[in-house]
Order: sequence, then C-alpha cells, then structure tokens
Amino acid sequence: MQAKLWIIKIGGNVIDDAEGLKHFLERFANLRGYKILVHGGGKIATRMAADLGIEAKLVEGRRITDEAMLRIVTMVYAGLTNKQVVAELQSRGCNAIGLSGADGNAIRTVKRPVTTVDYGFVGDILPRSVDTDTIDTFLNAGLTPVFSAITHDGQGQLLNTNADTIAAALAVALSARYTTSLVYCFEKRGVLRDITDENSVIDEIRAGEFEQLKTAGVIADGMVPKLYNAFEAIGKGVNEVCIGRADDLQLLREQHFGTRLVR
Amino acid sequence: MQAKLWIIKIGGNVIDDAEGLKHFLERFANLRGYKILVHGGGKIATRMAADLGIEAKLVEGRRITDEAMLRIVTMVYAGLTNKQVVAELQSRGCNAIGLSGADGNAIRTVKRPVTTVDYGFVGDILPRSVDTDTIDTFLNAGLTPVFSAITHDGQGQLLNTNADTIAAALAVALSARYTTSLVYCFEKRGVLRDITDENSVIDEIRAGEFEQLKTAGVIADGMVPKLYNAFEAIGKGVNEVCIGRADDLQLLREQHFGTRLVR
Repeated sequence: MQAKLWIIKIGGNVIDDAEGLKHFLERFANLRGYKILVHGGGKIATRMAADLGIEAKLVEGRRITDEAMLRIVTMVYAGLTNKQVVAELQSRGCNAIGLSGADGNAIRTVKRPVTTVDYGFVGDILPRSVDTDTIDTFLNAGLTPVFSAITHDGQGQLLNTNADTIAAALAVALSARYTTSLVYCFEKRGVLRDITDENSVIDEIRAGEFEQLKTAGVIADGMVPKLYNAFEAIGKGVNEVCIGRADDLQLLREQHFGTRLVR
Repeated sequence: MQAKLWIIKIGGNVIDDAEGLKHFLERFANLRGYKILVHGGGKIATRMAADLGIEAKLVEGRRITDEAMLRIVTMVYAGLTNKQVVAELQSRGCNAIGLSGADGNAIRTVKRPVTTVDYGFVGDILPRSVDTDTIDTFLNAGLTPVFSAITHDGQGQLLNTNADTIAAALAVALSARYTTSLVYCFEKRGVLRDITDENSVIDEIRAGEFEQLKTAGVIADGMVPKLYNAFEAIGKGVNEVCIGRADDLQLLREQHFGTRLVR
C-alpha cells in the first residue's frame, strides 16, 4: 500500500497575517505523516517593489514579471518568506527544508511564450517538470519540503510560477508513489452552497457532480477554474483535493476539513 | 578510506562581479567529487538597504544586524544570490541545492550575547552546530549543497553568520566522515611572501611554520586571523586549507592552487 502524502498550499491571505501564519504553521507541524508545503507570495513583494520605486505591472489581472520584479519575488518568496517559514517549522519540531524549483532541480519550467502579451519571466509547468526522485529523497530522510513559487528553466534562468499550479503538479507527479491529498487553503471554510452563508459548506463533490453544480449556478466565478483544475489533478491520479480555511487544518485528519473533491 | 570533500568559500569580491561569478561557477561545476559551496554577501545587500533608506550600522568594522538588516540579508543572501547561484550551477550540470542553516536544521547557531556591543541578530557557531547526517543525505543523493550565510537558533529566529566561519565549521564537522579540503577564495593568488609581488605565492605552510612567518612579518594584518582560523580548523581534523583566487579554481585538482596549509 502506498503511503499518504499531504501537499498543502497557502496563499497571500495566510502569509500576510503574521499571527495567523504562526497558528497555521503550528497546525501544519502537528500534521502526522509525509507532507509538503507550498506557499505563494503575499503583499510583502508588492510593498517591497513600491518602496524601491518599481511599479507593479498587471495585464488582465495577472502580474507581469519583468527583470526587476523577478529579483524582488526571488528575494521575498524564496528568501524572506521561505526561510521564516522554515525556521518557524524547525522551532516546532518539523524538519523543514525550503526549496525553489531550482534546488535539486525539483521543478523545471519553461518561460511562457510571448503571444499578444509578454508575461516576462513566468515559468509554465510541463509534464515531467517535477523531479520526483529528489523530492522522494527528502521525504525519506524525514524532511518536509517547503516550496516557494520560484522555479528555473534548467538554463540558468529563474522563473516566477503560480503556486496553485506548483502544488497541483507536485501532487500529480507524486501520485505514482504516494496516495496524495492536495489541500488548498483559502479564506472561506470550503465551497459554499450559499456564498453569503459560511455554514453552507458542501462536504464532498464528486467529479460527476461538478457540471451540474456549475449549471445550477452554485459554483460560479473564481471557484469555477479552481475546481476545474482540482478535478483535472484528480483525473491525473491525485486521490483527493480539499479546499478550506488554513485555520481549520487540524480537521484534515478527521476528514472534516472544508470541501472534499473526489473522483 | 574516506572520500574527499571540498568545501569552497567565495566572498563579496566574486559575488559582486557577474561575469567573474559565472566563470567561477563553471570551474566549480567542473570540479569532480563531493563538494559544498559557501557564499558570503557582497554589495547587493548594502545597496538594497540604501535604496530602502535603511542605514548600515557598523561597530569596529563589523556590521550590526538589526531587524531591518536581517530581513535584507535574508532576502539577498538566502534568496536572490543563493537561487541565482543554484540556477547557474544547474545549467552547468551540477545538481546544486541552496540551503540556509535553517533548512534541514543544517546549521544551528546561538544569538551572540550582548556585552559592551549589541551585534543584533548575529549567530555564533558552537560545537555540534552542524547536522552532518542531513548534509550527508544530500551528498549521498548526488546533490551539491550551496550555503548562504544565514542560520537559525532552533527557536524560530534567523541569524546572520560569518561565511568564513560557516565554511570552517562545515569542514571540521564533516572531517569525521570525509577527507576535507577547505578552500578560501579571495582576491590574491595566495599568501604572498612579498605583498607587492603577485608571483611570490608561498606554496605550502605547515602549522609549525606559522609562528615563525608571523614573527618575521611575512604574514601580517588581515592574514593573521585568517591563517589562525585555518590552522585551528586543521587542528580539529580538516585535512588541508587552501587559499587562493576564485579564478584559479581549476588548479585545485593539480594541487597548484594558491597556498596550501597543512598540519
């Protein structure tokens, strides 16, 4: 039987709240078994850019990563945030190791081709982007990988990569060796039947029910691509995808964390 | 027989010269066998601090690491510089992994006690600071550790630590398992008999000759503490310490690199 592996992704809403982050990391450290943390950015990079007089460029809501911005996200994501998270986990008895995709060649991406938009130094994940041998070495040595959203192209270029996509790619690739649970932490308690009611969390959605819920308008807006990507990961071998609040992480073990997406 | 392990330290003079750094990394990547790179800071952190309006504080020529400066060195050393070096090595076929002392609990230090001077968030290395098991895991997996000069105290606090000291501590700790060569790259071709003559490199200095050369005034000023620390490392089990130019790294294999310090 394959061992269970948690791949847990946290975003800016957790990173930016110092106290909330500490609480989350305590819960993460207490989670038994094999686990990987993936963290996104947060406002520190935006603030740092502003303080340095570098203007954030957005096209259709997506950040353009020019050279100056790449330096900043590399410093903040792979440096400051990553090492602070690792040191905090170490203090709680979790033997964390901070990684970018360049480290151990763990995640190799390709620079997004320029079409009508030039996104700059953004790396897209291809099949076989993840070096599962390297990650397995860490897990077997009792280490807990903590990934920042910085990758590389294998030719010396660092690239900014979406953290949700990294988490999904890790989960898919490692499904060959582990029974993987991909966990997305966001600001709500789960997928809500009624967006205005935090108590209307849908416990479980099966792949077959997704279209139906979409048509009925229960799943709308930003949740549509989120769930689409989640079910795509499930289609590629991920055992389950859980979506809920970072604050509720301790409920994972009891299978009462947010919404559970399954085959 | 123990395998040979190179621990090579580069400082600001290599880091700050983009072209020189690339050439050095090519030579480093080509060096066969087990190896570890340790890199110091350079001027990027100082420039970044100035750009952010943070004043660098010095006491007796030593940088004071207050909270704002710790954030900057963590970003620059453990983030920008470390990941750029790793990506560059990866592009040259060297499977590098960037580490701070917090990662895998590799180097745990203690915050320097406040006496007449408060150095701030500076970590001092104690005996048993280095977790050799973790580093051994990386080396055995074919990975090349690249250490920045950031460590942690095990209680969640990151600390700024002297890169020369980190290199020496790694070499001493790993001498129990490897035949270690500690290599310091600096701006000169080696220890010079005549400071004005780059061709007067002393090939080899034995521990017993050190006092004599010091008394004769051949070794003076900044070289005294450098060599003192080097012979101390040798006294603790390091096989040899080599001091020379980053540009000459390919000469290591032929034992013609700079000055060789031995028992």
